[in-house]
Amino acid sequence: MELLKSHRTIRKYQATSISDDILNDLLECGIRASNTGNMQLYSIIVTRSSVKKTLLAPLHFNQAMVMQAPLLLTVCYDINRFSKWCEANHTKVDFSNLLWLLNGTIDASILAQNICIAAESKGLGICYLGTTLYNATEISKALNLPKGVIPITTLTIGYPDEIPEQTDRLPLNSVVHFEEYENYSNERISDIYKEKENLESSKNFVKENKKENLAQVYTEIRYKSEDNVFFSQKLKKMLTDQGFSFE
Amino acid sequence: MELLKSHRTIRKYQATSISDDILNDLLECGIRASNTGNMQLYSIIVTRSSVKKTLLAPLHFNQAMVMQAPLLLTVCYDINRFSKWCEANHTKVDFSNLLWLLNGTIDASILAQNICIAAESKGLGICYLGTTLYNATEISKALNLPKGVIPITTLTIGYPDEIPEQTDRLPLNSVVHFEEYENYSNERISDIYKEKENLESSKNFVKENKKENLAQVYTEIRYKSEDNVFFSQKLKKMLTDQGFSFE
Repeated sequence: MELLKSHRTIRKYQATSISDDILNDLLECGIRASNTGNMQLYSIIVTRSSVKKTLLAPLHFNQAMVMQAPLLLTVCYDINRFSKWCEANHTKVDFSNLLWLLNGTIDASILAQNICIAAESKGLGICYLGTTLYNATEISKALNLPKGVIPITTLTIGYPDEIPEQTDRLPLNSVVHFEEYENYSNERISDIYKEKENLESSKNFVKENKKENLAQVYTEIRYKSEDNVFFSQKLKKMLTDQGFSFE
Repeated sequence: MELLKSHRTIRKYQATSISDDILNDLLECGIRASNTGNMQLYSIIVTRSSVKKTLLAPLHFNQAMVMQAPLLLTVCYDINRFSKWCEANHTKVDFSNLLWLLNGTIDASILAQNICIAAESKGLGICYLGTTLYNATEISKALNLPKGVIPITTLTIGYPDEIPEQTDRLPLNSVVHFEEYENYSNERISDIYKEKENLESSKNFVKENKKENLAQVYTEIRYKSEDNVFFSQKLKKMLTDQGFSFE
């Protein structure tokens, strides 16, 4: 529990590589996570070579940890393997729709989180790369993923070369609801976000980006509407090209 | 690591309730998980009352553990709170699309998995309810979720009243790929699934369901195409009604 509570994302790694034994342990912990119907609709792609890292780095917007981390794991929703098994058994399955994409995303994510916790218990540090869904098409090419295999998230893993401060969180009671969702009044919203807005780091963000407030840094710089729409449409196109239906 | 490796889903619980202190600890561990941009686009709904359990049970297809578990946690993708904050700050954000639904699903899932591991470290047992996405519309009504709050997954949690066998897994090397995805030949597929097909429990499934093989039990009984399509369309309709765009 202390391990979970002391989690920090690590973006700087030592050059030390990760042994095959530890890698194997991390992967074993990953696949012990719960999964829908025990069908294991996932695959994990291990990247350690600098050739592949060089291909992947720009697809993760050249975040430095992609080249620096000794280990990258790309966790995918995989209906290719299961479909081949079904074919061999004279039947077929249809998991190419919104519901099953979400089921697969849940399974891939909890597998990834098991790996993170196992890694941290071994003194390693991790970082999730949200860029995986932004450039899923190009990442699929780089990793030779066939139809039916969708990269969901990527972990960089290595021995930490930094001990960053823990990031802030909203007060626990503002994200937890008892028995029913209690909607937020304007006063409550202002109260919940006050501490976050008053952090030195938040104030610097606002100043550096020449915005009026922190919310605008999120909506007008970090997660602009046109980017959200662009990358969502790109993802949708990739999935549709692979036979996914969103009807 | 041993904790992660010895995970078993628990579906039978003792009547013992879970103290507020432990619940608080579980939730604290949950929100320490990594999340996209530290925006905390999630909410957790705590269910302990039998009134709410009675409402939720049929929506989870009357699986017995819903009434029996002392604690249910419904983890949601929540853009309502963040949007209200943006409004109060004279800006707005658009996270109502496919990309952000997946981002939110990842964040909700890794939060849920942190809670599971924290729970297991306290001697509790957990079960994921995949039925959450099947009946997201009705669950939203039961929990009074406003527009912009989508239930992603539900955990039942309690002190175990059973010690089930661990479920099988495919050989680790069949779900892991080094540097590139290596597609599966028919021989490889047959080799990978052999052990699973030969389990006594698998053979019983096939016999009970009067099918030729295990794959057909999955595709023709457990996850029939018409059910997949029906529940996916239902989910899509709910999201579209809430203003999500899948274009």
